[in-house]
Amino acid sequence: MKEFEFIKLLKEKCKGCGSTPGIGDDAALFDNFLVAKDIVCEGIHFLKATPAEHVVLKVFSANISDIAAMGGTPKYVLLGIAVPKAREGEKKNIIEAIKKSAGLYDVEVIGGDTASASNDLFVSLTVIGKKGRFLLSRSGAGKGERVYLSRPLGLARISLEKELGADFDIDAFKHYKMMAEKELGEVLGNVGTVTSCIDISDGLGRDASHLSEESGVKIVIEEKRLPFSHLKQFDVDKVDYFINSGEEFALLFTAKKEHAVDSYLKDNGFEVHDIGYTQKGSGVFLSNGAKRISISSKGYEHK
Amino acid sequence: MKEFEFIKLLKEKCKGCGSTPGIGDDAALFDNFLVAKDIVCEGIHFLKATPAEHVVLKVFSANISDIAAMGGTPKYVLLGIAVPKAREGEKKNIIEAIKKSAGLYDVEVIGGDTASASNDLFVSLTVIGKKGRFLLSRSGAGKGERVYLSRPLGLARISLEKELGADFDIDAFKHYKMMAEKELGEVLGNVGTVTSCIDISDGLGRDASHLSEESGVKIVIEEKRLPFSHLKQFDVDKVDYFINSGEEFALLFTAKKEHAVDSYLKDNGFEVHDIGYTQKGSGVFLSNGAKRISISSKGYEHK
Repeated sequence: MKEFEFIKLLKEKCKGCGSTPGIGDDAALFDNFLVAKDIVCEGIHFLKATPAEHVVLKVFSANISDIAAMGGTPKYVLLGIAVPKAREGEKKNIIEAIKKSAGLYDVEVIGGDTASASNDLFVSLTVIGKKGRFLLSRSGAGKGERVYLSRPLGLARISLEKELGADFDIDAFKHYKMMAEKELGEVLGNVGTVTSCIDISDGLGRDASHLSEESGVKIVIEEKRLPFSHLKQFDVDKVDYFINSGEEFALLFTAKKEHAVDSYLKDNGFEVHDIGYTQKGSGVFLSNGAKRISISSKGYEHK
Repeated sequence: MKEFEFIKLLKEKCKGCGSTPGIGDDAALFDNFLVAKDIVCEGIHFLKATPAEHVVLKVFSANISDIAAMGGTPKYVLLGIAVPKAREGEKKNIIEAIKKSAGLYDVEVIGGDTASASNDLFVSLTVIGKKGRFLLSRSGAGKGERVYLSRPLGLARISLEKELGADFDIDAFKHYKMMAEKELGEVLGNVGTVTSCIDISDGLGRDASHLSEESGVKIVIEEKRLPFSHLKQFDVDKVDYFINSGEEFALLFTAKKEHAVDSYLKDNGFEVHDIGYTQKGSGVFLSNGAKRISISSKGYEHK
């Protein structure tokens, strides 16, 4: 059973889940707060050889990104860590990493649970944030809107492949260090003209597809608008790596062209990229002018 | 490093944790909410052979008990589950168990994360509750107060030993089914005369010791007041099993005798046991009239 199916089944079976954004969206809403939770496991989400402190930062980023994608401001975190005997020596580093990550994102560690593990290191994080003035969702995009991306994509995948053995001139742990768009998310949740938002966790194609499906619009990404300069030094298919790189934690969002949210953001210190538009229909397409190819299922599914 | 040491170290290193009850108490406070989080691992907290649905209920109970111990009302839960290939077939039962547990405690599952695991099943739960009128803590007991226990103890240990191979006439999974005192916790958080409270998760001796240390009082448990009839059928040292049984999720609390909180509770349908008193000093003692023995370190520490 795939992750999405499991979550869908849980949602169906779970009385009352419908009253909040609940399972399936990036974070859940209660009262005036947003909450997100992730669990990661050694050997599945990271390698046995990966230093635990990198894992800690990444799980912070993933959850804070979920809050940012809904326009909230992360405030509090709770950690659950299960450490196998073989990694006992890393506990000090784990504590330092928690402290450092909490500092980087200016969130308060208010609780948690530590335990022993039989074989694998597990890290589970819960992030609680304050809702912004406007709750951003995946379902609000209309047709004829612009599609914005907060920053270039692709390096998370290149660095992951380096960690797995590929020969790229890049920090093999860079993909653990992709930062969530905490400040941008906070601004987007207060600006009032953003119609939908999601963070890039599964890859541009797949995440755009979530927006497309839940909003009921077609999304067209214009290849000529994608910023590729950061990929120049790597011998890879630029388009492929741009649209198929997960856990980037960039934000993808939509707004009406006339609201010029990109100009507003630029005035406030955020350079975002206008990469395409929505129209009537369904699916996500990459257009190079001459032709359009479907990229709805591009990306990767988390195990 | 033991769990308490790890948490203590994290607390020391964590800027700002002091502004809330934070790590170390049963649940953390933010705004008008309480939040508790637990992580459990196959092979450490439960056996490979233990059906996953029992694990799910127990982790619900443990976290809801943490909220109850602070006088709150559990409202929302978020689950993190990592399932190894060998247990894939249990996913349906896990979903049913989540639904059933949420129903039993009348809490809403608002989110979560499911993942694959390499070797072991992990379950992490976050419970969010509403603070009661009064926040109960471990530190409010004064001298000359009565000590109350919500129900008899010992069966969790007997059933755990049965699961581990001992020959007792009891459900080997009963210890997974010990229910948290959700309703009682809610009442205690609104009554105004309860001076301190903790849930029995480490055993009576050790948990009473937490109250004693944090309140700065001596606690004397009167053996003649302990209700033993539920242990009659088992060939065990009754006193030992009563004071050394963890994860019982009963509530232990203190109040002034003249406030007669036990009578008030009885009138409201809760039969609690007056098992002893506090006095000036430190430590936890079991008194049988003739002599007092220290039971401060009785109980067990979670791995």
